[in-house]
Parts: sequence; structure tokens; C-alpha cells
Amino acid sequence: MTTTGKQIFTTLEADGTLTVEVGETQFPDPKGNQVLVKMEAAPINPSDLALLLGSADLETADYSPGKLVAKMPEPFASGAKARHGQRLPVGNEGAGTVVAAGEGEAAQALMGQRVACVPGQAYAEYAIADAGMCLPLGDHSAEAGASSFVNPMTALGFVENARMDGQRAIVHAAAASNLGQMLVKICQADGIELVNIVRSQSQVDLLKGIGAKHVVNSSDDDFMKQLRAAIEATGAFYGFDPIGGGKTVDSCFKAMEQVAASKMGDYNRYGSNQQKKMHIYGRLDLGPTILTPSYGFGWTLTGWLLTPFMAQAGQETVGRMRQRVLSELTTTFASSYKRKVTLEEMLTKEAATEYRAMKTGEKYLVTP
Amino acid sequence: MTTTGKQIFTTLEADGTLTVEVGETQFPDPKGNQVLVKMEAAPINPSDLALLLGSADLETADYSPGKLVAKMPEPFASGAKARHGQRLPVGNEGAGTVVAAGEGEAAQALMGQRVACVPGQAYAEYAIADAGMCLPLGDHSAEAGASSFVNPMTALGFVENARMDGQRAIVHAAAASNLGQMLVKICQADGIELVNIVRSQSQVDLLKGIGAKHVVNSSDDDFMKQLRAAIEATGAFYGFDPIGGGKTVDSCFKAMEQVAASKMGDYNRYGSNQQKKMHIYGRLDLGPTILTPSYGFGWTLTGWLLTPFMAQAGQETVGRMRQRVLSELTTTFASSYKRKVTLEEMLTKEAATEYRAMKTGEKYLVTP
Repeated sequence: MTTTGKQIFTTLEADGTLTVEVGETQFPDPKGNQVLVKMEAAPINPSDLALLLGSADLETADYSPGKLVAKMPEPFASGAKARHGQRLPVGNEGAGTVVAAGEGEAAQALMGQRVACVPGQAYAEYAIADAGMCLPLGDHSAEAGASSFVNPMTALGFVENARMDGQRAIVHAAAASNLGQMLVKICQADGIELVNIVRSQSQVDLLKGIGAKHVVNSSDDDFMKQLRAAIEATGAFYGFDPIGGGKTVDSCFKAMEQVAASKMGDYNRYGSNQQKKMHIYGRLDLGPTILTPSYGFGWTLTGWLLTPFMAQAGQETVGRMRQRVLSELTTTFASSYKRKVTLEEMLTKEAATEYRAMKTGEKYLVTP
Repeated sequence: MTTTGKQIFTTLEADGTLTVEVGETQFPDPKGNQVLVKMEAAPINPSDLALLLGSADLETADYSPGKLVAKMPEPFASGAKARHGQRLPVGNEGAGTVVAAGEGEAAQALMGQRVACVPGQAYAEYAIADAGMCLPLGDHSAEAGASSFVNPMTALGFVENARMDGQRAIVHAAAASNLGQMLVKICQADGIELVNIVRSQSQVDLLKGIGAKHVVNSSDDDFMKQLRAAIEATGAFYGFDPIGGGKTVDSCFKAMEQVAASKMGDYNRYGSNQQKKMHIYGRLDLGPTILTPSYGFGWTLTGWLLTPFMAQAGQETVGRMRQRVLSELTTTFASSYKRKVTLEEMLTKEAATEYRAMKTGEKYLVTP
């Protein structure tokens, strides 16, 4: 017996044609520790957009009910060679009700419950999910729990990772995001110093409004001076950047090195001995990352993703993080949405254009 | 009592004026475990050039006997703010005879011996050096021992570091250098696979001539194909790059990811699970490092310097490395020089222009 329902699929052809459509599909019965979740709410995160729409030209796309066909420009079309011709489901996370469960104990225990889950195909009426990754939501609504994985676990992951690396201070770029606001609250509670980099005065005000101490505005003329002062005050030589392209990481390394060099006695042609580390965890800017030779050799730049971090952190740490998400779901980890859309409404020009812009405070929630 | 002798100094003023000159100076008596070495030979390494000349305009410089005055262009002049106005000695390494020793046992034991040393001021008639970093050369000439530290220890350091990180294969860029040739021989002896990236057919021939198995030519149209094939054959997802600027690292990450992705069953929007790591250990190209978003998040790029590596590796490993350098000084670690120059000859237009070009096979040796 299988369950039939609607699901969003994205397909990129070798010629650069991207088709995103609502299709009718059959969901298999859950096996072992799988559950079948009737999806009620799923956020559109930046981490979903690369697969869903990428850099497709939404202006010239063809829109029909439940379907859009757009042109993916180069180099993105040929750069995504590995997915050419594959009809891929989308949607990292969401929440809904368990309507069928595999024979495994963990799966059976969730039967009938409302859960947050990470199926990787959340933009659908149903989704098969791993019981071990499901978070029972108790009395919380599906909307309250829809974003309880990606952003909360990533923000908690930064703090856990910083501690593992012996750090007590973090620099965070694009810090006014939903995730960034969570990080502000986590760092406050945990006594971790945080340097928030934002790009407008309204974002400065937003973060100061929730209690952030160090907020620097990259649009200000004295941005580098602000950044140096905040790094000096916090000792943050360690940070996370979801922008990826451009010079954000470069600015951080530069400011960190300048702060470190100002404390050195003698000139050292190789730069300071201060180790500087930045993590790129997103690609809001798909342009190249630019690193100028202005901070010696004492730096490390590395990609950061939640899944490998959780594998590295281990089950106990991950369990503790998930427990914290649940108990602070409507406070620290509350998400807000600009608009709710159905699967069909997701694929209109107006909606797609707006949520792909990934503007702060304009997050969409899909309610299948 | 002090010893008087000639020494090269480099001074960068805030206005971008670089003065490099031979000056008369007084060398203090060695104390504790210091020795005073009468310098006989010192190589001009790429790692010396940033401090010695940087990007100064040698074409329009003013040359007089034992002195050159040149203009340092922006952004390099203001980028080196920390050294403005300081009269700095130059020359990482060299060899000579110990003519005075501090009262320490290690220093006294070297009295009268010919040693290789790492004084950081090797372009001089005398230099104060740390006895613990001196390598007694026995019957070897000063010329044979002059380059026994920077290149040999760096090449050995790569292999040691690779082993520490659980790697059995290395990618090396600008691989036809003196250091690169040493690395070819070390990897052969140690059973480490090596992918050599060079930029001309003559460099391919040079490395194949000393037994290198995988040599790829970045000037060839099918460079990326060659690089992928070599990475596939060796399993090298780990490498070292002395160029720094430009797209060398990017090409390596791309090729590594393409090899890893070709072995994946399913498409993963975040790239393969294969961890890729590159180290930048030089800045032959002072332009920015360009990283394109085409290899997911499973990569790390980090600066690499010999001194912090040795501190991390510990005394036993470093001692073993140094012993190996001494026993293979005229084989694995033999250096060749295009020309020998005095301190004064170093500062002529012809010499400075040639050695700053850092062309393969055109290394200079200073014989004060």
C-alpha cells in the first residue's frame, strides 16, 4: 500500500532549462525506523534555494499553475552537471503529523504525534522521515515547529564548535537573519561574546533591540574601524559567514590581523602569531570568495555544514542541542514568516521572486 | 667587545620609499646558547624577497654602490604599515664558521665548526644564531650547507604534516622549484604519491627526469583533465601551494571535487563528502586568492609556515628531520645556484631584477 499526494520537483536539463513543478507522486510505506509524516508547514530556507531555483532567470520564466520553467545562466547550468536530468524533491525541514510508522520502536513511538522532521523533501503533502531525526512537538503547532532544525541546530552548532575549538567569542556575518537572531540569544545565555556584522542601520537597530552588544554595519564608511574595535573588545578571531562570495571573510581576517598586529612588539614579515579561523556555511553571494594577501599565514578558511558537524559532535551533544531547541521553541528559536503559500503558490512569479531575494524578515512558509 | 662588519638593511618609509643598503654594523658578543657565525654563503629564497624588495619598482629605482632606493607601489606600501620606518636585517638562512660562542654548552660545542644556521639576518658578514638551530656541516662546504634549512625542512614538513593528517598523497603547485624537486625525491623514498603541477613542458621534462610519476602542465589546454586524472590515480585530496594568488588552489579543489563527485551514487546539493585540504605556504603571486563556489562545503584552505609547524610537530620529529637533511645534503637536498653575488652585487639592478623574478633554476647565492 502506498500513499498518493502532491510534491514539488526541480529538474535541471543539460541545456540549462530548469523546471520546477508540483507533481502527483506515490509515497512508499515507512519501513524500520521510518515514519510517514503528513506535512503541514515547511520553511523556505536559503539552504533550500540553491536546489529549488538556483540562479535561474525568474524574470523571463514561463509560469503556469503549479509549474515554472526558467533558464539557468552559465556558469551555474554547467556547474550543476551532477544533477542534470534528475527530477529532485526539495525542502530540508518541516513539521506535520505522523500518519504511518515502520515496525521499529522509535518509529512506532511517534505514531499519531505532531513532529518536526528533516526529510529533504518537505515541500510535499507527505514525507518519509527518519524517526531518529524527528522532534515530537507536544502541544506546539506545526508552524511553530517547522523551522526547528536547520536554523536552531546551526546556531547552536556554531557555539558548540567554538567551544570545541577553545573559543569564547564569535564573529557572525549577515547577522540579522532568523539564524543570526537566534545566535544573539544563545550567546547571551551562554556567555559567548558575539560580533554581529550587518549591512544597514535598521538591522543594527533590530539586533540592538534584542540585546546584541556588538553590531557593526558594513555600509558605514568606518566599517573596518567598527569591526576592529569589536574584535578588540571581544577577542573574536573565529567566525561564521553565510555570504561566501565577495570580501566578507577577507574583511574579517584583515581586521583580526590588524588587531593582533597592534599588540605585537616586533615586526614579523609573516604576520602575527594569532590564529584566525572563518567558516563559510552558505552562499548568499554566488560570486567568488576573494582573499587578499594581507594577513600573513596564520589563518584557516573552511566550509561548514550542519550534517558533518553533527556527525563529529556525536549523539550526546546533538541530543542536548535538540532538547534545548524544544524547550526554547517559542522564545530563542521562534521564527517569523512574511507569508504562507501552498505548493502551487510557491511557483508563482511574485512569490518565487520575493523568497529568492532572501531579504531579512521576508521568509516564506509552505503549507501543503 | 663587539665585532664590526657589513650587513644588508631594508627600510620602507610611510611614503613608499624603499631603501636597501649595505651598512656597517656592530655584532654583539654571543650570550648563553648563541653563537657568532662568520657568514660564508646565504641563499636568496622567495621567503626572503617579500621583506628584501617586496613589489618595489626595480625598473625606475636609483642604484648606487651598495644601495638601491625604489618606490613601493600601493597597496603594498601602506599594507606593510607595521614595518614603516624600521631598518630591518634580512636573510633567513645561510652557512659559515662559528667564531665566537656564548657560555652555554650547546654553543661552546660548536666553536670553530662550520654550521648551517637560521639567523634571520644572513645577508651579512657576521650573524648571531641560536645554537639549537645550527646544523654542524662536518666536511661539507658552506655553499653545500647554505640552503639546508628553509627548503629541505619545508619539503620534509609537508610529508610529515600529510602523515599526521592521515594522508598518503599530496598535490604540489609550482612543483619545479628547488623545494619541489626535493619533495619529488622525498616522496619517492617515503612511498607518498605526489601530483606535481608545473607551468611548462620543460618543467614537466625536468621533473620526469628525476623520476616524478605525475606531472601536470597548467599551460596545456587539457590541464584540468590532466589534474583530475592524476588526482584519481593518486587519491590526493590534500596539497600545498606557494603561489597563493589567483586560481591555483581553486583548480585543485575543483578537480578534487569532480573526482570525488564522479564516484557518488546520488546527487548531493552540498557536494561530495570528500574532505579537501589545501595549504598556502607562499605568495609568489601577490594578487588575491580566488575561490569559486564549485566544490561544496567540504574543503579547508589554510596558511602554512615552517616555524609554527615545527612547534606543533615537536622536538623529536624536528630532530629526525634535521638529521635526514644532513645525511642527504648532497643528494636529496642539493641546491644549485645560477650565480654568486657579494652583498654589494646583490643590490645592482641586473641582479635584483633577476633574482626577484624567482624563475626556476635561477637562484642566487650571497657570499658576503
